[in-house]
Amino acid sequence: MADIKKETPDESEDNPAGRRLDPELVSAAGIAVFDHSQPLKLGSGASLAPYQIAYQTYGTLNKARSNVVLVCHALTGDQHVATTHPVTGKDGWWPRMVGPGCPIDTDRFFVICSNVIGGCMGTTGPESIHPETGLPYGLNFPVITIGDMVKAQVNLIDQLGIADLFCVIGGSMGGMQALQWASSYPERVFSAIPIATAARHSSQNIAFNEVGRQAIMADRDWHSGNYQRVNARPNKGLAVARMAAHITYLSEKALQRKFGRNLQDRDQITYGFEADFQIESYLRHQGFTFVDRFDANSYLYITRAMDYFDLEDDFDSVLSNAFKDTKTRFCIVSFTSDWLFPTSEARHIVHALNAASANVSFVEIDSDKGHDAFLLDEPEMFSTLRGFLNSAAQARGLSADKAGSFA
Amino acid sequence: MADIKKETPDESEDNPAGRRLDPELVSAAGIAVFDHSQPLKLGSGASLAPYQIAYQTYGTLNKARSNVVLVCHALTGDQHVATTHPVTGKDGWWPRMVGPGCPIDTDRFFVICSNVIGGCMGTTGPESIHPETGLPYGLNFPVITIGDMVKAQVNLIDQLGIADLFCVIGGSMGGMQALQWASSYPERVFSAIPIATAARHSSQNIAFNEVGRQAIMADRDWHSGNYQRVNARPNKGLAVARMAAHITYLSEKALQRKFGRNLQDRDQITYGFEADFQIESYLRHQGFTFVDRFDANSYLYITRAMDYFDLEDDFDSVLSNAFKDTKTRFCIVSFTSDWLFPTSEARHIVHALNAASANVSFVEIDSDKGHDAFLLDEPEMFSTLRGFLNSAAQARGLSADKAGSFA
Repeated sequence: MADIKKETPDESEDNPAGRRLDPELVSAAGIAVFDHSQPLKLGSGASLAPYQIAYQTYGTLNKARSNVVLVCHALTGDQHVATTHPVTGKDGWWPRMVGPGCPIDTDRFFVICSNVIGGCMGTTGPESIHPETGLPYGLNFPVITIGDMVKAQVNLIDQLGIADLFCVIGGSMGGMQALQWASSYPERVFSAIPIATAARHSSQNIAFNEVGRQAIMADRDWHSGNYQRVNARPNKGLAVARMAAHITYLSEKALQRKFGRNLQDRDQITYGFEADFQIESYLRHQGFTFVDRFDANSYLYITRAMDYFDLEDDFDSVLSNAFKDTKTRFCIVSFTSDWLFPTSEARHIVHALNAASANVSFVEIDSDKGHDAFLLDEPEMFSTLRGFLNSAAQARGLSADKAGSFA
Repeated sequence: MADIKKETPDESEDNPAGRRLDPELVSAAGIAVFDHSQPLKLGSGASLAPYQIAYQTYGTLNKARSNVVLVCHALTGDQHVATTHPVTGKDGWWPRMVGPGCPIDTDRFFVICSNVIGGCMGTTGPESIHPETGLPYGLNFPVITIGDMVKAQVNLIDQLGIADLFCVIGGSMGGMQALQWASSYPERVFSAIPIATAARHSSQNIAFNEVGRQAIMADRDWHSGNYQRVNARPNKGLAVARMAAHITYLSEKALQRKFGRNLQDRDQITYGFEADFQIESYLRHQGFTFVDRFDANSYLYITRAMDYFDLEDDFDSVLSNAFKDTKTRFCIVSFTSDWLFPTSEARHIVHALNAASANVSFVEIDSDKGHDAFLLDEPEMFSTLRGFLNSAAQARGLSADKAGSFA
């Protein structure tokens, strides 16, 4: 990190017309291909080759290549953090966070967001064709870890000719990746912002993931993971998995405020099993639309990666050792009503970082929106991250934002 | 209630050899039958006839018939509150609460516990044969409410010749029934103990129930509810429903303490989808054993009854009106770590009872066991209820307990 700090600001870095890296590699919608000569060595001991990573970029890489922000997505996210989703036609998943003038200001920063390994939006995953059999991997896809996702991202930025990240940021599983980056590649991470996350998946969270997996596997259309071969899709099971998970993304208070016991398009209960209540209608909609954009086997693999995540496991159960001598600047964010990744988990990270004498900010944001708060309009989160990023930008010698402010 | 208070203590009431009611009716394992002349008029407007109620009794009815405690079971409970379950061979579901010398002391009280209408342990439910078609009801069974469950219990005690209850007690859905009893039949309820419950099902709780129902309905073996006719059982869907629900019965802390990230019969993760973690193994076991003792359609109907429960709905949304002029003595119990029926719901009931100038005790018990605490060894709950019941017994002129104590 030291040499980066010595870099002088690049005058062209806020120039939208500034040099982009090889447009063949860094297109608005990129695919980075890694052939048999570059296998991805997985935490399980297996290797994955060939593989590809689908990614999006936003903004302009400065001459010093020092303004890169890697955004890591959560369980069901993808690379379309700030672009229209090609399947749903909806806006990117982090609308107020990433874009011109946003905290992750695409007028200043070069933003990369890639679909995780094991995903289903263009990056190699269980839906991909197994090169040896010519058939979709299905459950022959190797089990992957958060560390594997990060390794794939490292290979991506290597291929893009990027030495290090100004910032790695993510919420939920994205936050796990941010922590993993900071732990495994400290010299390549100037700052890290893990939001609404944990350094290990809790028993309760494993439990909810397991329910989701069992729901998928219970669907007869799952066919032991080989549904593509018989042109089936375990949509009902995947919808149930999504519905169960979705409850955990919201706080009890948010559910009560948004839906309460309100009825859906009716004046009274129907004494039946239709969606009498708005919350039922909402959940069914969440489940039924989700299956259009997500692959059931990917859901199995990615939830498994989350379950397996336990950063201190490789450090004799002492989390601070995962961040020994780190020079990375951390900003840890949690939300008061997030019961999936409660503030206690954030504190566990903060204590470890303190024990490692790391540079760390910690903000618990008062919100009743539950875990999903990190994706929503949370002014305090935006202002906190804006301040943190400005301060880190100043420390790195990047230019001020358009308002001329570093704070 | 007044005339009951005037009753003199019955000297024989603690005599185990004391008179039992008609042994034909009150056997250790009773079935009360109601024929076409006594239809159960349901909240939906439909009628159910004929129907039967399976129940258990414990202890001895005193001469004044003034020592009756009705125990109401929760979603997946049944009448076997203190007797070996005929399917699982396990002890009754409330072992330290009901029995000789227990807070609900079967040496003093005559305890009745009946399977709810819509259930699957002998009481008429969707598994029963429709008298008109000769086929199992399936989804032709009428949707029932908590009020209907209570009406059926009223008919049961009428048939048993019991005018009123010394106490009605239950946890979770059992607590809903206790509240409904106290509201609908105040003159027949001397005391009521709703535990870990609410006067209305919350949005989050409806959401979890809906996930369970969708899991069942997603199982192709459900056959639109007609699985009995084709000799199938939607066991996978029902198991997933049970797994999801089971998580809500435990606190995050209890899960962490009991299971944490401990592995099941292995030293390291297997990089696969087996039950690597103890919590996974535990949940799968819960799901797979549940289907042996429970009917999937009953699960649909009973969860629906819980969702529909909103006691203030019939009282212009003013809960205190549900308890107007009540003389019933209430003891409301909640648990600090119960996030399914949090203390805020108990407080809502207590405030309403206070507004109705009711006689009410309220205890929030410090426990990390979550919603399930009400079924477990919670000494503070036992001592609280022992004290409340002794005091109520004294007020009703029942004799002291064996220790000669009323407090």
